[in-house]
Amino acid sequence: MSQPALSPALANSPFMRACRREPNDVTPVWLMRQAGRYMPEYRELRAKVSFLELCKSPDLATEVTVTAAERLGVDAAILFADILLILEPIGFDLEFAKGEGPVIHNPIREAKDVDRVLPFDDPDSLDYVFKAVTSIRSALKPNLPLIGFAGAPFTLACYAIEGGGSRHYEKAKAFMYRDPGAFNVLMSRLVDATVIYLNMQAEAGAQVLQLFDSWVGTLGPDDYAQFVQPHMTRLFAELTPTAPAIHFGTDTNSLLELQRDAGGDVIGLDWRVDLAEAWDRLGPGVAVQGNLDPIILFGPESEVRARTRRVLDKAAGRPGHIFNLGHGILPHTPVDNVLALIDEVHSYRPR
Amino acid sequence: MSQPALSPALANSPFMRACRREPNDVTPVWLMRQAGRYMPEYRELRAKVSFLELCKSPDLATEVTVTAAERLGVDAAILFADILLILEPIGFDLEFAKGEGPVIHNPIREAKDVDRVLPFDDPDSLDYVFKAVTSIRSALKPNLPLIGFAGAPFTLACYAIEGGGSRHYEKAKAFMYRDPGAFNVLMSRLVDATVIYLNMQAEAGAQVLQLFDSWVGTLGPDDYAQFVQPHMTRLFAELTPTAPAIHFGTDTNSLLELQRDAGGDVIGLDWRVDLAEAWDRLGPGVAVQGNLDPIILFGPESEVRARTRRVLDKAAGRPGHIFNLGHGILPHTPVDNVLALIDEVHSYRPR
Repeated sequence: MSQPALSPALANSPFMRACRREPNDVTPVWLMRQAGRYMPEYRELRAKVSFLELCKSPDLATEVTVTAAERLGVDAAILFADILLILEPIGFDLEFAKGEGPVIHNPIREAKDVDRVLPFDDPDSLDYVFKAVTSIRSALKPNLPLIGFAGAPFTLACYAIEGGGSRHYEKAKAFMYRDPGAFNVLMSRLVDATVIYLNMQAEAGAQVLQLFDSWVGTLGPDDYAQFVQPHMTRLFAELTPTAPAIHFGTDTNSLLELQRDAGGDVIGLDWRVDLAEAWDRLGPGVAVQGNLDPIILFGPESEVRARTRRVLDKAAGRPGHIFNLGHGILPHTPVDNVLALIDEVHSYRPR
Repeated sequence: MSQPALSPALANSPFMRACRREPNDVTPVWLMRQAGRYMPEYRELRAKVSFLELCKSPDLATEVTVTAAERLGVDAAILFADILLILEPIGFDLEFAKGEGPVIHNPIREAKDVDRVLPFDDPDSLDYVFKAVTSIRSALKPNLPLIGFAGAPFTLACYAIEGGGSRHYEKAKAFMYRDPGAFNVLMSRLVDATVIYLNMQAEAGAQVLQLFDSWVGTLGPDDYAQFVQPHMTRLFAELTPTAPAIHFGTDTNSLLELQRDAGGDVIGLDWRVDLAEAWDRLGPGVAVQGNLDPIILFGPESEVRARTRRVLDKAAGRPGHIFNLGHGILPHTPVDNVLALIDEVHSYRPR
């Protein structure tokens, strides 16, 4: 199987043009976690089904994805799923405990535990994801690109070792320092699984693939270069070349050049960096996604609009900017401010 | 009252020389939270008294401070206290709830709440801190400098608004964006109190003053310049000029030049930056403190030593390096690795 050919409507969409660093009249915008708890429609559905049930129902995943994209009027939709889903078929016992976030009941704690990480040789176990992609693709407007995604291997490894969320990633990093060989094997297996997973999302109907390396910013540049970069380089090299890839992380000011060298057509920036300076460092060979602080959305609308323009000003004149937040929308974000942000991006013309 | 004159033994100590960017034969080292839960002597004492009781007893604070400094053989001691103590006399109801970290029962949530932040006009209310400083000073070896410290105003403001620890500082930053005027008033009052508090620590016997801006790395450079830098600039300008100041934060890669311009003789670096590159950016006009990842201490001793040397190599040839971790020692850190780190720093000679 291979990826479906890109229709002209999709190929010419502002989002796909930006991924290819082609000029746009209007900057495309989408928001990480745009289908999420801040939205009443989402909360209503979640009152009836658990998070994992929602992820595992292609119909419901389609409903929340499409509802959010249409309600907001964004320039791309993103598959409703979770970065940890891939851990189930490769041997982890995953639970989304109510109010506590994800829990992995059989985390990796010793080198020998890595042996029980299975190859992802039964992709049918995540058939619900691929079905959701196909279903969302056919429900979306024909000119609206769909983003598939996965967690990047370092971030997945942190969860797999910590057994859940963490403040300092103490167990994961201690494992890495203590047993770099076993850590490398773990990372390799995660890359293998992720390549299959993402390429199958592309085959199922995703036009773009985003890697979320949400926790990688806990590493300094030497550690990234030693423990992460080679794996990310292989991962990007093995992704289908027909779908542009977005390489996202937070807290990555020290890592940007290393991330760019590892791969990705688009580099995600969080709000801690100045977009113009970061793009100067990255050079014109990549597109850039970002980078409004999600907490700005808790401020007054005038401030949301002013800060949105400030980000756009920093990108002005450079083809390949995709507007986004620097991280996902937070649960209590006012919807009206989200709408104001999108209106501001779409109304903006560079001065 | 003014600061006691510096004895020749203190003035010529490697730590004070490094603060003045004078060459040293051996790099001075101390570790943030060197008197803490990782140490059996500390845990034994804490089994008998609460954290706040320990802070408020000059005798016990002296015991833990001096025990840690002597046991480790470090080149500076740091007052045992907590950055939040200053919040009590200025109107906050502070509690260290067991296993939950600090809780402020009357946080700031609206602009008008800022009115109830009191001036620090009864410094006797923190007399236990100043007594501890004097007591520690007289118990320490005459050539071992003592560091006094305070939380920086942004970090204190985050606690005061959030009411405790936080992951995203959503309430604090939303307050800042929504009501910059009230936020500025809060910051000003915190600066006023902190100046008095730190200068009195210097008068009581501290040779050096460290500002902990532990949470400031959640801001991008524009926000730092607008909301924080003017306050930090005034704070450093109003500190006694006779005690060198250390300006510490974590996750500050985007802020280093702005922090340097605000003030401080020594700039603290966390492990996310390359020490050599960061110091190049800061220029030779400041000393630098850092920057080993505290989680390295969970690795094998050989790795602790190799990573320690790597940090020292990056600083080699530049006067004014104080070795430290990039953040505080974590509670489960093996003591033997801490001792190995210090031995490695003291054995090191630049190649």
